[in-house]
Amino acid sequence: MSRKEAALRSFGSDTRLPTLAVVLDIIRERETVSRVELAEATGLTQATMTHAVRKLIALGFVREAGTARSTRGTPRRLLELRPEACHMVGIQFDRFSAVGVVVDLAGRVVAQREMPGAGDRAPEAVVAEFAEHVAAMLEDAGVARSEVLGIGLATYGPQDRDAGILLTPQPSPAWQGYPLAESLAEATGLQVALENDATAAGIGVQTLGTASSSFAVVFMAGGIGGGVIIDGHPYRGATSNGLELGHISVDALGARCGCGNRGCLDTIAGPIPVTEQALSNPALVSRLGLGRDPLTDFLAIGRAALEGDTAAVGLIEASTHTLAVATVTLVNLFDVAQVVLAGSAFADVGELYQDALQDVLDRSVFMRHVHSVRVELAEDVSQAAAVGAAALVLRNLLESPNVGDRAA
Amino acid sequence: MSRKEAALRSFGSDTRLPTLAVVLDIIRERETVSRVELAEATGLTQATMTHAVRKLIALGFVREAGTARSTRGTPRRLLELRPEACHMVGIQFDRFSAVGVVVDLAGRVVAQREMPGAGDRAPEAVVAEFAEHVAAMLEDAGVARSEVLGIGLATYGPQDRDAGILLTPQPSPAWQGYPLAESLAEATGLQVALENDATAAGIGVQTLGTASSSFAVVFMAGGIGGGVIIDGHPYRGATSNGLELGHISVDALGARCGCGNRGCLDTIAGPIPVTEQALSNPALVSRLGLGRDPLTDFLAIGRAALEGDTAAVGLIEASTHTLAVATVTLVNLFDVAQVVLAGSAFADVGELYQDALQDVLDRSVFMRHVHSVRVELAEDVSQAAAVGAAALVLRNLLESPNVGDRAA
Repeated sequence: MSRKEAALRSFGSDTRLPTLAVVLDIIRERETVSRVELAEATGLTQATMTHAVRKLIALGFVREAGTARSTRGTPRRLLELRPEACHMVGIQFDRFSAVGVVVDLAGRVVAQREMPGAGDRAPEAVVAEFAEHVAAMLEDAGVARSEVLGIGLATYGPQDRDAGILLTPQPSPAWQGYPLAESLAEATGLQVALENDATAAGIGVQTLGTASSSFAVVFMAGGIGGGVIIDGHPYRGATSNGLELGHISVDALGARCGCGNRGCLDTIAGPIPVTEQALSNPALVSRLGLGRDPLTDFLAIGRAALEGDTAAVGLIEASTHTLAVATVTLVNLFDVAQVVLAGSAFADVGELYQDALQDVLDRSVFMRHVHSVRVELAEDVSQAAAVGAAALVLRNLLESPNVGDRAA
Repeated sequence: MSRKEAALRSFGSDTRLPTLAVVLDIIRERETVSRVELAEATGLTQATMTHAVRKLIALGFVREAGTARSTRGTPRRLLELRPEACHMVGIQFDRFSAVGVVVDLAGRVVAQREMPGAGDRAPEAVVAEFAEHVAAMLEDAGVARSEVLGIGLATYGPQDRDAGILLTPQPSPAWQGYPLAESLAEATGLQVALENDATAAGIGVQTLGTASSSFAVVFMAGGIGGGVIIDGHPYRGATSNGLELGHISVDALGARCGCGNRGCLDTIAGPIPVTEQALSNPALVSRLGLGRDPLTDFLAIGRAALEGDTAAVGLIEASTHTLAVATVTLVNLFDVAQVVLAGSAFADVGELYQDALQDVLDRSVFMRHVHSVRVELAEDVSQAAAVGAAALVLRNLLESPNVGDRAA
């Protein structure tokens, strides 16, 4: 049994978890599988399994794929996924960068785009540009709009997820309360679900199949955020606005942050403060050609650190150490055995952060004598959140109570 | 509808939540109630409700209590709780103090004891003493051992809850791996469930009826711990050892803590460091008669602060401020709208902490423009964890899949 199947199996015994998603995931993992094998792999009853398979066939997501002789001689009808049955679009963005993907039912990325971030533009302009990129990606992939389930849009918080709006005046006041999901839906003709970027990255990591069923995400793009997946489900808190890792204090006497707190992680370890410090070093600026946007500059500083540039190493080491302190807090509070790093800021220097965090966690986590905590890089650090946002669209469908009933 | 009923109602719509516990809670709240009113209050179907009521009657927890004329003229059969049907024992302890309670099915404390903490004693001696206190409390309450469902034992972590053992060499190495729950079960002839003290306090706060369905607990007795209740359920993490609030760093450059981390909250704001600082002030020591155990000394310092003793005010203010910084982290990560203070260290000075935390949270919480965060004192700060540990025994019974089937 693979780690992912073990995680999925633990889902099956929990009535909270959406049967269809679990069954679909196992069919995807196994390529072809019989109903008996499915029942064994999930721990679900034969009746529940039969019902779930009937719904997945009615949705067109799964088809019969001939028979296989079992060891006891009875031929078993096999099931297989129809990866082309539907597609989902995922977009993750912040001020400095945006990533778009089109994902098929098998979780494969069939089209992708790196796009400009929101910058200083009005939300209307950014939404219009995203809509153009969505059309272009669908064309790249040869996917008709009618075959697309919807768009998952992942970004920073605070958000009103249900309403599809941001509750923050970042990057400019025009964004606060702007009907973001609704506008993108109108511009594309597709349903849009808003999601926190770090949580989306967690769902993406699950989709890419590399995580256990419980883990934390440290997400770093323009800013720093966190996510926690427990027993396969995102931790949501009261209003889906928890895990504000970038705004926990790592220095109680530090500078006042715009959020009201002091010494926030985001203002010390993130790409913006690291780049700000670099810009005060003229030799470093000229050596690395700094002065573009903070994320691009940060990635240049990271690459220079990998090559041993002393000033760059100092900046990145300070950042890794501060991020490690906050990650220990995250682990001590949420009790997870795995931390996954995701987000475009880890693109080149992910391993520097991974090693530094692992080192500090090994020495400092409260539970280390009870269980170890592994630090890992997401399989695709830059795309994980966009892939997760896309996967979320499918998950929302499979979790809706009457899915497949009409079709059946 | 009371706040508690609103919280319970939100339970009813969630299939995860134990129907029996929800129904029992509403019968307890309403004193007498018809099945129709129960279905209305919980949002459960008539069939589910009928099944639940049948089980509760079979268990002897609920009885018919005559009829009432409804507004439409049809007489309705009423149900009421049998508070005397069973009792539960709760004990919360750490090194410096212990609290024991006997609680009836209505959640009323019918016997209670303040007991010595573990001190430097071997676990065998402490367990034997707890067993004596349990016998004495049952005698005080006039409750036969056969009418007791079991004992909930709440203390610090890390723990292996299922095995009923502590995974820490605190207060002495003999405690690590000692069969704590099993030994107390043998000494009392009662089932024993081990629980984290802060989580138990959260369950106690729910039992006492003062909290919404989602809130965080800041627990302070000899040390500092945390708990989070989301949609009525404790947050458990991977191994029920999260929420180690006392071991999050509030000073990254602070002293190395025994846990491996630096500048832990517990080593700066808790009763032990506050008392240690007080002991270095001879005038304060003689003024307050300090030099007993840290918790007793801390409570004396707190009372002096309430009376305006300048040195004591300074010590308590530093403690409240540091605890507030950590509580902002807790709230920013778990996204709750309510923080409840519990534990014997808040006995006299709870309001000082409540006011200071409220003030800092109002200025510093990331989500404050989206929703406010109320800081409240548990209804009985010193007993809440013991009451919750007792309630946990009932909750475990009501959540077990086949409860009441044999009796029915």
